[in-house]
Amino acid sequence: MKSTSTGPEAVMAIADLEQARLLADPLKLSILQAMGGEAKTTMQVAEAMGEKPTRLYRHVEALEAAGLVRLVRTRPKRGTVEKYYQAVARRFEVHPDLFAPEDNTLDTMLAGILTRATTEIGEAMRNFRQSPHPDGPQPLFLHLRAEVSAADLDDLHRRLMDWADDLESRQATASHESTANWSGFLAFYPSPTGQKSNRENTS
Amino acid sequence: MKSTSTGPEAVMAIADLEQARLLADPLKLSILQAMGGEAKTTMQVAEAMGEKPTRLYRHVEALEAAGLVRLVRTRPKRGTVEKYYQAVARRFEVHPDLFAPEDNTLDTMLAGILTRATTEIGEAMRNFRQSPHPDGPQPLFLHLRAEVSAADLDDLHRRLMDWADDLESRQATASHESTANWSGFLAFYPSPTGQKSNRENTS
Repeated sequence: MKSTSTGPEAVMAIADLEQARLLADPLKLSILQAMGGEAKTTMQVAEAMGEKPTRLYRHVEALEAAGLVRLVRTRPKRGTVEKYYQAVARRFEVHPDLFAPEDNTLDTMLAGILTRATTEIGEAMRNFRQSPHPDGPQPLFLHLRAEVSAADLDDLHRRLMDWADDLESRQATASHESTANWSGFLAFYPSPTGQKSNRENTS
Repeated sequence: MKSTSTGPEAVMAIADLEQARLLADPLKLSILQAMGGEAKTTMQVAEAMGEKPTRLYRHVEALEAAGLVRLVRTRPKRGTVEKYYQAVARRFEVHPDLFAPEDNTLDTMLAGILTRATTEIGEAMRNFRQSPHPDGPQPLFLHLRAEVSAADLDDLHRRLMDWADDLESRQATASHESTANWSGFLAFYPSPTGQKSNRENTS
């Protein structure tokens, strides 16, 4: 067995337009997420996703060529070689400035993330209704809006990022206890129209 | 002017099936959210939502009859009386146990929240692309999954609830500075199928 021991970085800032375009493809993004924890073969990812492996190979190759996943281990198996890939980071940050104003890649990417999250939440809730967890925390869905100061905004933004870092770092150390798999979808964004709350002068 | 000074509670746990059913109606939920900050008239809510006020009156009446909004102030205006309503809480918690297993009210409610959040996020991002905020925090969209211990799960769950409480409590005190309106959508739920990460024995 050939192996390298470096795990994924917590966050990778995407500075390359080609890399960003790959992330805008929902299937590549799913593969990348699946390879964000333990190293996996394309076959294992395909099984978890309910896809045919033959459909995924070229996407994994594209992700590897772009430097978004890396080959961390090979293992001989029945005359062939199993290739274990791992994402280079557990989270990717894409800055809007990367794109030209008329480029809609970012919208495509966001639409893909939203569709995937919505589908997953619906599925999770059907499962939960069929077998609730009476002792643990209940699933949480919150949609909120508030008028906040610049300092509070920075603080609230940072705390959500910290929460995400924490979720991911605890994942790595959860191997010796009873564990559960939970998903999080966090969105925090400037409110669209109608958002300027009409503070009344009632004094 | 008649006025009562009690503001909304932070959270109200819904224990009444009729109240829960009202929350499952997307339009009533939108009205309730609009009345979650300052007290507003039905007319003001209609304007902010781009709806006709005549379409909203009966929904506001139903919310008041169910005890989800209350009349906090009246003001004579041109021969009529303006009625200012406020939600009794800024957040409502609905426990899945409230519903019979075959009752799909909760699914309807969740679907409504998701649709509304998705629409709002799309709109917010189009606005943001047209006029980015180079100095402030960037919009944040994260979809994560992790295998966590029961203790970590409780902690992560509590921190998201605290974050929501904090967002709402800061709203109340943000009146004297430059402020911005931001929306948050937080979902944290048991991962659906494929979630059991295949920890490999590579030792």
